[in-house]
Amino acid sequence: MSRWIQNGDNVDITKERKNATFNTERMSAWIHGGDEVLKRRREILDYVKSNPDFKDPIPVEFLSREERVSNGTRKIVKMTDNTDQIDGADFFGEGMYFQSLVMGRDLHPLSLHYIMFLPTLQGQTDDEQLDEWLPKAIARSIVGTYAQTELGHGTNLSKLETTATYDPSTQEFVLHSPTITAAKWWPGGLGKSSNHAIVVAQLYTKGQCKGPHPFIVQLRDLETHKPMKGVRLGDIGPKLGINGSDNGFLLFDKYRIPRKAMLMRYSKVQPDGTYIAPAHSKLGYGTMVFVRSIMIKDQATQLGAAATIATRYSAVRRQGEPVVGNGEIQILDYQTQQYRVFPQLARAFAFLFAAYEIRDLYLRLTEELTHGNTELLPEIHALSSGLKSVVSWDTAQGIEQCRLSCGGHGYSQASAFPEIYGYAVGGCTYEGENLVMLLQVARYLVKAAEETRKGTSNLAEICGYISKTGRRTSSLTSIANYTTDQIIEDLEHVARKQVFHAYDKLKKAQQHVKPEDAWNQSSVELAKASRWHVRLYLVKTFLKKVDKAPEDLKKVMIHVARLYAFDIISSSSGNFLEEGYMRPDQITEIKEGVYECLAKIRPVAVSLVDSWDYDDLELKSVLGKRDGNVYEALLQWAQNSQLNKSDVIPTFEKYLGPMMKDARSKL
Amino acid sequence: MSRWIQNGDNVDITKERKNATFNTERMSAWIHGGDEVLKRRREILDYVKSNPDFKDPIPVEFLSREERVSNGTRKIVKMTDNTDQIDGADFFGEGMYFQSLVMGRDLHPLSLHYIMFLPTLQGQTDDEQLDEWLPKAIARSIVGTYAQTELGHGTNLSKLETTATYDPSTQEFVLHSPTITAAKWWPGGLGKSSNHAIVVAQLYTKGQCKGPHPFIVQLRDLETHKPMKGVRLGDIGPKLGINGSDNGFLLFDKYRIPRKAMLMRYSKVQPDGTYIAPAHSKLGYGTMVFVRSIMIKDQATQLGAAATIATRYSAVRRQGEPVVGNGEIQILDYQTQQYRVFPQLARAFAFLFAAYEIRDLYLRLTEELTHGNTELLPEIHALSSGLKSVVSWDTAQGIEQCRLSCGGHGYSQASAFPEIYGYAVGGCTYEGENLVMLLQVARYLVKAAEETRKGTSNLAEICGYISKTGRRTSSLTSIANYTTDQIIEDLEHVARKQVFHAYDKLKKAQQHVKPEDAWNQSSVELAKASRWHVRLYLVKTFLKKVDKAPEDLKKVMIHVARLYAFDIISSSSGNFLEEGYMRPDQITEIKEGVYECLAKIRPVAVSLVDSWDYDDLELKSVLGKRDGNVYEALLQWAQNSQLNKSDVIPTFEKYLGPMMKDARSKL
Repeated sequence: MSRWIQNGDNVDITKERKNATFNTERMSAWIHGGDEVLKRRREILDYVKSNPDFKDPIPVEFLSREERVSNGTRKIVKMTDNTDQIDGADFFGEGMYFQSLVMGRDLHPLSLHYIMFLPTLQGQTDDEQLDEWLPKAIARSIVGTYAQTELGHGTNLSKLETTATYDPSTQEFVLHSPTITAAKWWPGGLGKSSNHAIVVAQLYTKGQCKGPHPFIVQLRDLETHKPMKGVRLGDIGPKLGINGSDNGFLLFDKYRIPRKAMLMRYSKVQPDGTYIAPAHSKLGYGTMVFVRSIMIKDQATQLGAAATIATRYSAVRRQGEPVVGNGEIQILDYQTQQYRVFPQLARAFAFLFAAYEIRDLYLRLTEELTHGNTELLPEIHALSSGLKSVVSWDTAQGIEQCRLSCGGHGYSQASAFPEIYGYAVGGCTYEGENLVMLLQVARYLVKAAEETRKGTSNLAEICGYISKTGRRTSSLTSIANYTTDQIIEDLEHVARKQVFHAYDKLKKAQQHVKPEDAWNQSSVELAKASRWHVRLYLVKTFLKKVDKAPEDLKKVMIHVARLYAFDIISSSSGNFLEEGYMRPDQITEIKEGVYECLAKIRPVAVSLVDSWDYDDLELKSVLGKRDGNVYEALLQWAQNSQLNKSDVIPTFEKYLGPMMKDARSKL
Repeated sequence: MSRWIQNGDNVDITKERKNATFNTERMSAWIHGGDEVLKRRREILDYVKSNPDFKDPIPVEFLSREERVSNGTRKIVKMTDNTDQIDGADFFGEGMYFQSLVMGRDLHPLSLHYIMFLPTLQGQTDDEQLDEWLPKAIARSIVGTYAQTELGHGTNLSKLETTATYDPSTQEFVLHSPTITAAKWWPGGLGKSSNHAIVVAQLYTKGQCKGPHPFIVQLRDLETHKPMKGVRLGDIGPKLGINGSDNGFLLFDKYRIPRKAMLMRYSKVQPDGTYIAPAHSKLGYGTMVFVRSIMIKDQATQLGAAATIATRYSAVRRQGEPVVGNGEIQILDYQTQQYRVFPQLARAFAFLFAAYEIRDLYLRLTEELTHGNTELLPEIHALSSGLKSVVSWDTAQGIEQCRLSCGGHGYSQASAFPEIYGYAVGGCTYEGENLVMLLQVARYLVKAAEETRKGTSNLAEICGYISKTGRRTSSLTSIANYTTDQIIEDLEHVARKQVFHAYDKLKKAQQHVKPEDAWNQSSVELAKASRWHVRLYLVKTFLKKVDKAPEDLKKVMIHVARLYAFDIISSSSGNFLEEGYMRPDQITEIKEGVYECLAKIRPVAVSLVDSWDYDDLELKSVLGKRDGNVYEALLQWAQNSQLNKSDVIPTFEKYLGPMMKDARSKL
């Protein structure tokens, strides 16, 4: 008996766990950042399990949209009633875990209240405004959201259409949506739940446009919750995922708000309409880096969950009889299955450790910024943008590989894969569309390449490789002797090469066409450079983290980290073969390295995923149940189907019954 | 005014259409197989549009599961009332189109009745059984499904657990599910709609197991529709897609059926229990090839729809202002956007033409089989298995790329992408799990490699390349002069190389380990060989089809076909660089070829997708509307949300209202 092995468990999964060559608890502590963190996780888990308020009546996938929003609201109110259960300062750790246990992946109408409304009040109000609004928001006497994106406008803020025109005669702003494309669109909780919003609108005063500015706006009556006159809003309908949130639309019809509704920490409009520009540009980058560290950890957690479900199910599922008469084997024994699932597990680790590293960099950055040192900022901001992009895409792909590896049952919502995918893949789009992000990173890389060429480069640790003079050929001799430093060196070579390849392409194009066209014509290659920049960082972070691990854990994890690196190299072998940097036999060696890693991971795979410390409550997957008794659970889960409420559904009387009866009468 | 350009359309999309350098109608006819086919498409479309029975009350994404099943049943009954509207013999053409217009992607409870129940009756009954059952099934006086897959058993039929034990004393079979894993699981329409099923069960007679056999079984009472005593069944719950179908589970508790319920065309059980084995093995391969040609066409149609939506939306959406003051540009102008979308369009074409080719091969095959010539069979069967696998995976990936290219709006169900993806990606799993399929193909390729090595190879057209002696280096000089034959030659080289690489790996492993382990250890490389085999076929088919196109269409389509080929080569450049078959400058040339193709396709992209001839009724996408007026339509679509039925939803009174009131009282 242990946390993971219990009486009545599926015998195959127990056998797997008994084969573990390492201590799962020690591995869990290492993964999550120490014994204390692990202890707190279990305390939070026990608390959530013990509180009946947090239970779903039935799995959410059986609920209608209205029921999902209602159930999510019920739970989030209870959850925020009980924030004293966690360390509020540690959202990256305890906060995220608490929320994931209580709220799951369907989310809830208060997400934006906490993620955007509160922080914007904290960051953008003047002192008087802060005193007025912050206590209300914290006490939840109002519910707010953040309304920026419009139906016709996303990334490019300068083109938002909503206007806030100052009327000095009444000292009010008039909010207006001049077109349909000006409708605010997407904000979470906007449709039905929020009675306030930060609205970003083009500020007009004295006949001049001063660009987009934030305003705090009451949308609904506090008592009746009816929309205010001049405000039209509602839910934007069902989405690929996150249907527990009432993402909304919002249109203003000459809606008047007081002058003091404009958030005035930086810019101001005086009573007579005089505009005062901000003294210095807002340093919002730091917060963005932090939000991304959260996102990357969340993505890693989703991919880890997918890999856990696929690995456990693959240990339980038996199919195919390679030797007739010997019985069917666990599908985890098939190399093709390992090749589908284990690289996803490796990625989940890589992303998790990168998230930790980015969080630490953020803390360092914050520290340096207080000393007025902004040197690290652009490099870390670029890195975090790139990571967000690469991680969210690889996560989405990885989840689908895990789902497909579970065959037909992966297609059922019982597997939780459809929900995990719908939830995680949103990360490719929100907080900066992935390709837009990669091109932002590329702007930084182009600058770095330029400085390197000029010999003026002063690159810090993350981009240092760009100005290094590397080897002309890989030093790999055999996979057994292929060291961390060599692996990093080879990835640095390819990343550097792609950076300069894209840079040169851009420069060459600039000689023939307009700068904007040159950029556009080079953009696919520039995006590729950004991806290599990020991959290099991910490989380096992962390998170095494992190199420093305790010996008993390192001897397992080294295969996982190397699988991550070898998989990247072998699936992009073209980049390594170019100009003879690697020889085909070296690529073959690395491919064999992939297969060796798969074979090494196979015996410990179940215990490795156990080490992620997911509770069944968090996974919410019938296929990924700890006890491995998936078939009984599938049959039980299906009983919740709306269609199973009665033996004969009304459709029979209405359509099928008459059809068949009619046909029988004619035969 | 024309089919595609109408008054009131979005001006950007009209501008795009006016720029077409070819005749869209001519292109449509070429794509769909001639003027007559196109004419019939429009007749079917007009008929469906004119019939109010086929209308959905609101878009299905707003319906609950029960409503979806009910709505789907209503429509499929009406649809099958009116099959005289189409040429019933042409399911590949008219049938699929009719069904897609009426039923959309949510499907319905009668799918398996038509796809599996009827054909199995036709193929597996003796004459007496055929006379008894076929008229009933055709008249729809009974509704049937096909129950083979079990909760614990998929591909490996020999391990099905459901038993059919013959009792000579009553001349009955006793159907029984000895375990939970024996539950039939997944059959469409099984849960609530069907009153009959073909059940595949292990036949026991005289104490001996004779393996899996099909039985026709009544599941529900014809009048009351209640489950028969001894039969337990129901719906298996929501899935990633296709929720208009009541996929079901089924358990038997010693349920007795008459001896004549066993389908006896091939095997028989005599009244005394004597088993008569089939005279010759069933040639089911032909039908499988046909089903796959249908699947591949369906996948192509879904990917084409996704590319159409993304292309149209990209023409309408303006975002980013590369030159400040010049206004935002159409996102279709970004190279990164083109790089995301156009290769998907190219794939859709490649897959569609492959589907035509496979259908033609199937007809040739059927013809040859009637003359007793089975030579083509294994090669075509292997090809169709491989195509199913590669096409369904590339389609799924491509749909997601198209969705992501539409930014936030792609995440909304208004885009139709979530439904398209959920529907199409099922194809990776059903009709043979993709990796299992690829390994089946590999068994054929290994045989071909073996014969080539032995010099006994007598390979027909599809696999002929395996025994060719190819060039040692690519003959590519410049992308402008890179001919169809050269492209095919280069792909043949890589495909052949991978076949022999996998073969050699297998042979080497066989010297050291047991045959089953050797196969397993080589399986990832074997699957890769299968993929190259299929990709080569797809490129060849596409290029040759375009080479034979009328000149005015060819001059457009050549860029699409070459994009397809160049994209494959450049994204797997490692395979081409190995052993110096290509030089890095040749790869660079091909990459530039990709960008050139994108630029050539850009001006005609909207007309190219128009040529696929999708009606808005078929696309069911707000983003992909013909008229390009997407923003108004999004706002209108959202009004259907269940949450918008009232201004204030009950959740406010229950949870948010009390929470805020309580907080206000304390502030």
